[in-house]
Amino acid sequence: MLNLRPVLHILGWISCALAMVLCIPATADWFAGNPEWEIFLEVALTTLFVGGAVVYATRSRGATEIDIRQAFLITSLGWIVVAGFSALPFMHVGIGFSDAVFESMSAITTTGSTVLVNLDQLPPGILLWRAILQWFGGIGIIAIAILILPLLRVGGMQLFKIESSDTSEEKLFTALRTVVGLFTIYFLLTVACAVFYRIFGMSAFDAAAHAMTTLSTGGYSTHDDSFGYFTDKRLHWTAVIFMVAGAVPFFLYIKTARGHLDAFASDQQVRGFITLLVLTSIFMALWLAIERDIAFPDALTLTAFNITSVVTTTGFASDDYTAWGPGAVGMFLVLMFVGGCSGSTSGAIKIYRHQILLILVRAHIKRLFSPNRVIPLRYNGKALPADVPHSVLSFLAVFVATIAVFTVALTLLGLDIVTAYSASITAITNVGPGFGDIIGPAGNFSTLPGAAKWILTFAMLAGRLEILALLVAFDPDFWRA
Amino acid sequence: MLNLRPVLHILGWISCALAMVLCIPATADWFAGNPEWEIFLEVALTTLFVGGAVVYATRSRGATEIDIRQAFLITSLGWIVVAGFSALPFMHVGIGFSDAVFESMSAITTTGSTVLVNLDQLPPGILLWRAILQWFGGIGIIAIAILILPLLRVGGMQLFKIESSDTSEEKLFTALRTVVGLFTIYFLLTVACAVFYRIFGMSAFDAAAHAMTTLSTGGYSTHDDSFGYFTDKRLHWTAVIFMVAGAVPFFLYIKTARGHLDAFASDQQVRGFITLLVLTSIFMALWLAIERDIAFPDALTLTAFNITSVVTTTGFASDDYTAWGPGAVGMFLVLMFVGGCSGSTSGAIKIYRHQILLILVRAHIKRLFSPNRVIPLRYNGKALPADVPHSVLSFLAVFVATIAVFTVALTLLGLDIVTAYSASITAITNVGPGFGDIIGPAGNFSTLPGAAKWILTFAMLAGRLEILALLVAFDPDFWRA
Repeated sequence: MLNLRPVLHILGWISCALAMVLCIPATADWFAGNPEWEIFLEVALTTLFVGGAVVYATRSRGATEIDIRQAFLITSLGWIVVAGFSALPFMHVGIGFSDAVFESMSAITTTGSTVLVNLDQLPPGILLWRAILQWFGGIGIIAIAILILPLLRVGGMQLFKIESSDTSEEKLFTALRTVVGLFTIYFLLTVACAVFYRIFGMSAFDAAAHAMTTLSTGGYSTHDDSFGYFTDKRLHWTAVIFMVAGAVPFFLYIKTARGHLDAFASDQQVRGFITLLVLTSIFMALWLAIERDIAFPDALTLTAFNITSVVTTTGFASDDYTAWGPGAVGMFLVLMFVGGCSGSTSGAIKIYRHQILLILVRAHIKRLFSPNRVIPLRYNGKALPADVPHSVLSFLAVFVATIAVFTVALTLLGLDIVTAYSASITAITNVGPGFGDIIGPAGNFSTLPGAAKWILTFAMLAGRLEILALLVAFDPDFWRA
Repeated sequence: MLNLRPVLHILGWISCALAMVLCIPATADWFAGNPEWEIFLEVALTTLFVGGAVVYATRSRGATEIDIRQAFLITSLGWIVVAGFSALPFMHVGIGFSDAVFESMSAITTTGSTVLVNLDQLPPGILLWRAILQWFGGIGIIAIAILILPLLRVGGMQLFKIESSDTSEEKLFTALRTVVGLFTIYFLLTVACAVFYRIFGMSAFDAAAHAMTTLSTGGYSTHDDSFGYFTDKRLHWTAVIFMVAGAVPFFLYIKTARGHLDAFASDQQVRGFITLLVLTSIFMALWLAIERDIAFPDALTLTAFNITSVVTTTGFASDDYTAWGPGAVGMFLVLMFVGGCSGSTSGAIKIYRHQILLILVRAHIKRLFSPNRVIPLRYNGKALPADVPHSVLSFLAVFVATIAVFTVALTLLGLDIVTAYSASITAITNVGPGFGDIIGPAGNFSTLPGAAKWILTFAMLAGRLEILALLVAFDPDFWRA
């Protein structure tokens, strides 16, 4: 039987940590004289009490080793616990528990779909809470993607395993040092982004909130018009740069800091990612300039911003790009699947999987007509580990199947096919907005039926955990012996 | 340099064979006193002349061995040549060359999308020609899928390689005997289907035409209302049975005839296929009975017919199922991807690939939480060959990517996203109808722009050849040395 005590113990500690995070908006609101500080303090104390009780009840003498199944459970349940407690403050702006959990799950998975309307009129504490949740969700997934998923070998992530020492003490030390390094970089990038936003004209509050949701590629805004609220183009290009900064492999920042100055330039994934963004932005800008008769530089600002937003799975919108015409809808639909780089805050399929698929398909095609040829499989300068193709295949298959299942479920609840399909995709890829009149970039998830919100809440979690890390718990063998 | 002479030689012979096929509607029209016999005779003579000239020009002394690249080229170009010549008779009903080629490619790939309107008023010779093309397209793909694709190892088809003797003479003899066997079975099943259609009330002409397009899972009808024209439910259930008969592995008929009476019952693919049809039909009938308040037996007739039609990639419609509600649209969209069995006339992903994906994903998930466990991969009672996962992965990746590319291309031509996406899917899966007001089961492809028709013509061919068999020719290495 799987020993759940260490799992619960760590979940308790996660809750206690969340209580500390809840003190941030409480303090901010208290200083600003907003009445919401009481709400956050109340929720912080509740979370601390429950978390502390669980920690105490599940304490044990001596250190406990966490095995692989416990690691999977902590990874999945951690997000659920955090989403649950984080939802509570949202209930004070007049939405129900389903909506509040949808909002908090969307925040911590850095999806950015929202059920809240009239954002401009909401208490600043609530807006800040949304941004904080996305920010911590972002660093949370970076840490998990760099330290845990490679060990769990989820969806080909074993490619990005950090070489570490053999003794478990040194391993722990390396892990801790890595976490501190990642956190520092993430923090500094966010500060830099906020400074530029402020310089280029945002209010201090907007600059802080948007910087947090930019680096986390989350995409929550403090305005109903999302980034369309800001007219200065320098803000749009700042966002482009920092969305990209949030969507590249964070381990490369550490490598750069350690003196490998060409770490980014020599990385196959980063090169593919940047090439894709540049080419699609230029292509769509040309198309838009001709189709809508606007000047090319304006068109390029529009396409670079919105394409980067969708590909990095941020989900900001500077315009309702679905109104640009059928060609834009087609291209954005496909771009939603792309995703950023591994070990970043972005979701979806991710660049390295596309590159590995391309390598495998090319090799397969060559072998079809030259059966005896030996085709070496290399990625990023190294031979591809033997178990990676199987991992990527499994990811792709469950990814496609999950979208299909959620699409059918949502249509059975009465959603039209465009809404159902794009809602499934946008939730699983953690992008944010979907297509159609309801949940498009100009729309909102508030009017969906409650059951649809729960399905999408689950889909966002599944997408964030690369689906497979969640699916393991559905195998009966997982729970045996 | 690739030697194209034997390729052209065989294409010449294929054209001569097509000329013989063209004599069938010529003769039928002549006996029936229809003036179209002249058209068919004219096209037959043209085809015979061109084909004969090519055969003569490319003749050589002694037998020439066909290598693997030549086999790929013959497979792809054969369909293009046949589609080109077969299109000519359609131009006599007032459509242009683009439309005519779309129609003939749709016919020989057994897709069943049509650009012809007012079918009920068309000359019977033309309607017969559409049915004959689907029928020969059906046996053509069965022969290719059983004899050629396994040797070319396309998309995991190596699983279905027939064990044969070592000497090439015996191989040829086995191949010939297999072709004769397959043709006989296909012919007898078509006759049986026509007899039942006639008994249950179709005219002799309708019975013959529909029997040909049922067994080939093509789905061309002689009426604008498709199968909805026929009200007798026994006709619908007859169609269900013979669509299934056309979508099971044809090699199992030969095995059964050779005394393996449990060949079908013991086949994992057939069992999965039937189970899927039964369960989805019952589930959707229950949903339809509740949603639309109709009696369960009537609902079951509707769902069994239309689900079988879509899953077998036939494309008959007994009703506009997209009007049943969003849930039906969602389910049918997903069902379009499913496909029938390997070595049959049906297209799409096919049951065995889903089953192999499921086996691989399950094994992957178990290995995620039990890294040291050895999980044997078995399919249909045998160990899975080592190269099959890579083949299936390559197929799945190019399948998804092809749909994405065609969807974007069609939206850039101005088609709305539902039309563009469902047109891409229905063409690549060789189903027939799409979704939306234009190309839905109640609609028609005639109003699409010319460029869209050429894209879809290419997509139908790509889908019919499991995409990979066509993609090889796009690798520059294919043409070298």
